[in-house]
Amino acid sequence: MSKKNAFYAQSGGVTAVINASACGVIETVRKHPDRIGKLYAGRNGIIGALTEELIDTSQESDATIAALRHTPSGGFGSCRFKLKSLEDNRREYERLIEIFKAHDIGYFFYNGGGDSADTCYKVSQLSEKMGYPVQAIHVPKTVDNDLPITDNCPGFGSVAKYIAVSTLEASFDVRSMAKTSTKVFVIEVMGRHAGWIAAAGGLVEDRGIPVVILFPEVEFNQEKFIARCSEMIDKFGYVTVVVSEGAHWPDGKFLAEQGTRDAFGHAQLGGAAPVVANMIKDALGHKFHWAVADYLQRAARHLASASDVEQAYALGKAGVEFALEGQNSIMPTVVRKSSSPYEWEIGKAPLSDVANVEKMMPAEFITEDGFGITDACKEYLYPLIKGESYPPYRDGMPDYVTLKNEILEKKLPEFTLG
Amino acid sequence: MSKKNAFYAQSGGVTAVINASACGVIETVRKHPDRIGKLYAGRNGIIGALTEELIDTSQESDATIAALRHTPSGGFGSCRFKLKSLEDNRREYERLIEIFKAHDIGYFFYNGGGDSADTCYKVSQLSEKMGYPVQAIHVPKTVDNDLPITDNCPGFGSVAKYIAVSTLEASFDVRSMAKTSTKVFVIEVMGRHAGWIAAAGGLVEDRGIPVVILFPEVEFNQEKFIARCSEMIDKFGYVTVVVSEGAHWPDGKFLAEQGTRDAFGHAQLGGAAPVVANMIKDALGHKFHWAVADYLQRAARHLASASDVEQAYALGKAGVEFALEGQNSIMPTVVRKSSSPYEWEIGKAPLSDVANVEKMMPAEFITEDGFGITDACKEYLYPLIKGESYPPYRDGMPDYVTLKNEILEKKLPEFTLG
Repeated sequence: MSKKNAFYAQSGGVTAVINASACGVIETVRKHPDRIGKLYAGRNGIIGALTEELIDTSQESDATIAALRHTPSGGFGSCRFKLKSLEDNRREYERLIEIFKAHDIGYFFYNGGGDSADTCYKVSQLSEKMGYPVQAIHVPKTVDNDLPITDNCPGFGSVAKYIAVSTLEASFDVRSMAKTSTKVFVIEVMGRHAGWIAAAGGLVEDRGIPVVILFPEVEFNQEKFIARCSEMIDKFGYVTVVVSEGAHWPDGKFLAEQGTRDAFGHAQLGGAAPVVANMIKDALGHKFHWAVADYLQRAARHLASASDVEQAYALGKAGVEFALEGQNSIMPTVVRKSSSPYEWEIGKAPLSDVANVEKMMPAEFITEDGFGITDACKEYLYPLIKGESYPPYRDGMPDYVTLKNEILEKKLPEFTLG
Repeated sequence: MSKKNAFYAQSGGVTAVINASACGVIETVRKHPDRIGKLYAGRNGIIGALTEELIDTSQESDATIAALRHTPSGGFGSCRFKLKSLEDNRREYERLIEIFKAHDIGYFFYNGGGDSADTCYKVSQLSEKMGYPVQAIHVPKTVDNDLPITDNCPGFGSVAKYIAVSTLEASFDVRSMAKTSTKVFVIEVMGRHAGWIAAAGGLVEDRGIPVVILFPEVEFNQEKFIARCSEMIDKFGYVTVVVSEGAHWPDGKFLAEQGTRDAFGHAQLGGAAPVVANMIKDALGHKFHWAVADYLQRAARHLASASDVEQAYALGKAGVEFALEGQNSIMPTVVRKSSSPYEWEIGKAPLSDVANVEKMMPAEFITEDGFGITDACKEYLYPLIKGESYPPYRDGMPDYVTLKNEILEKKLPEFTLG
């Protein structure tokens, strides 16, 4: 067997631990110099492959690669660029395979969510047809936690931990102030389609915090919501609201679209938190505070979950090991063996079963009234936020690494995207 | 000398480390049972004294009190309640002293910012006149960092660390995505009058991040601001903006008031971040993300600065020790001996010099263009965010303590506030 090179790319929104997966891929490749040649990374994700902006990862020292494990964001750059369907844009897929051919790439490690699983699957199929077979392995990553088969997705556990901890801390703050000041605190979290991240805020209930969650899975009912908040404030003196950016009215309109307009009269997106906070103020008259965590939540490597970091690394490593076993068109997965004590192992799923399937929150994870999480949900979530995995610090800030990312000399003609 | 009791109260907005000061006060009092009797705490701050809702801190175990050191928020409750001037509401001051008399309280430890320093000063003066002298010691606390004489204020260092780290992490995220997606990230931080917290975001410049700061000290100039962002995006591909909630137009109007209205047409306060983000979008067309850290920043004990925790504790401890030396009407302070290596010691300031004086950011801490911080500012800030002081964790979340806070039997007639 001739020694092929490998290609790795990061896709979609980055996370606190996608670089830990990159680290797992690269360190494992480096352990097999007899089997795999160079490992190239795409500059800004798959776009880097299409435009032939390839990074030779061997330019980076072992220490630098090891530091990726504790560095958030996408070290090689990522992109929001979905390859169209094979029918609509076959030339992009063909271009990918030409690039792979030109650089003698036989392994394709694609690190992303649902869209990239689909791309990965198609590349594997088309490469066969084009007579240049490439082993395509999808390494899962998404804070949305919506990939099927795998118990959970790297990136989610750390966001969940960040939201649980931040909600706890802010709630302690409000509790201190409620007598004469703020009685309502609203935190807005990511998750346009699924309430996994919002659910994590619900864990503070176990620390005695009165919390109301607004899920995208539950149609917003203003009357019931105000009644629930009022009840909580009467009982506890304050209330914490966790609102998903995807929370919406029965007609599908996002809460964030409700009438908030900028200086130019444009409807302003984002900002479900102020909308909800004002709603309570108007109905009940209480002073409020609100926060929008936005990128802070998915980039918060300083508060990453140790399980999440470990799994992100293990899935990257497993991707390479599966490839070396001759596997193709698969995604390594997390298989939960037990929640308490937490035990898991690596499994695998064929990409044909992963592509285009979205895993939603099970209905039994949301309480009947729609404002909280059930014990089953807590049992699912706790292992995922388990353990701390602190980065090293320098001068009071984490010592994150920035890669050189020098681009390889090109071999093929220019290519125009789209 | 008869053995007097002591009274402790938390005042104003709480912080990640005000409980560390409480811990310093209580543990030090407990070391001197021969000198100080009971230590009472005010339920919800000074209101607890006025309404005679006193907490007997001896009901809490040593382990619980030790846990205050790593617990954010105000363990006994705080309040936003400013005593009026002596002329306008002498009865409140007199009530305080009656309460102290009724409970044989000879030491008053008041933990807060500028307003509480003033109250503390007046109590000390009036108690003399009323023939029931109380030793009044002010323990400094404010994320606003605006108390005079002391080099810095407990609470600020931890917020500064949180903002520096969060800005760094979110900037890494944006840098990864900028090629095809978000090019502008805006984070809104606390500080209505002074830009100390916003300044901390400027530290990311030393990690290669292009950052533009909007200070309350600098009148907002939209044209120059857009030009600076545009320049940064051209050079780096993205830009991070740190906007203080106090950033304002030349006429004094806050940016957050610029035309953002809720569903009912009310001008919406808070939310300078979306205003600024939309401004860049309208001028330059780039995709943006924005975050509002709000309470998350001042409650983030999980990311507290070790210097800050240490100083918060030391100032509480020093307050008691000064009282035992017979000092009155003073505030223990942090005196900086050297920035590098960082060396500091405890000093003290008479409350007459502290009350009603606000310390603003020195002009030489802001760069000439008004958008950045100078080396002098960095030299000031770095020691304050130095070191990590992690709380213990349980089930993936910090193990913060909640006090019993049982109220002592009342001895005096009811009192109506205000």
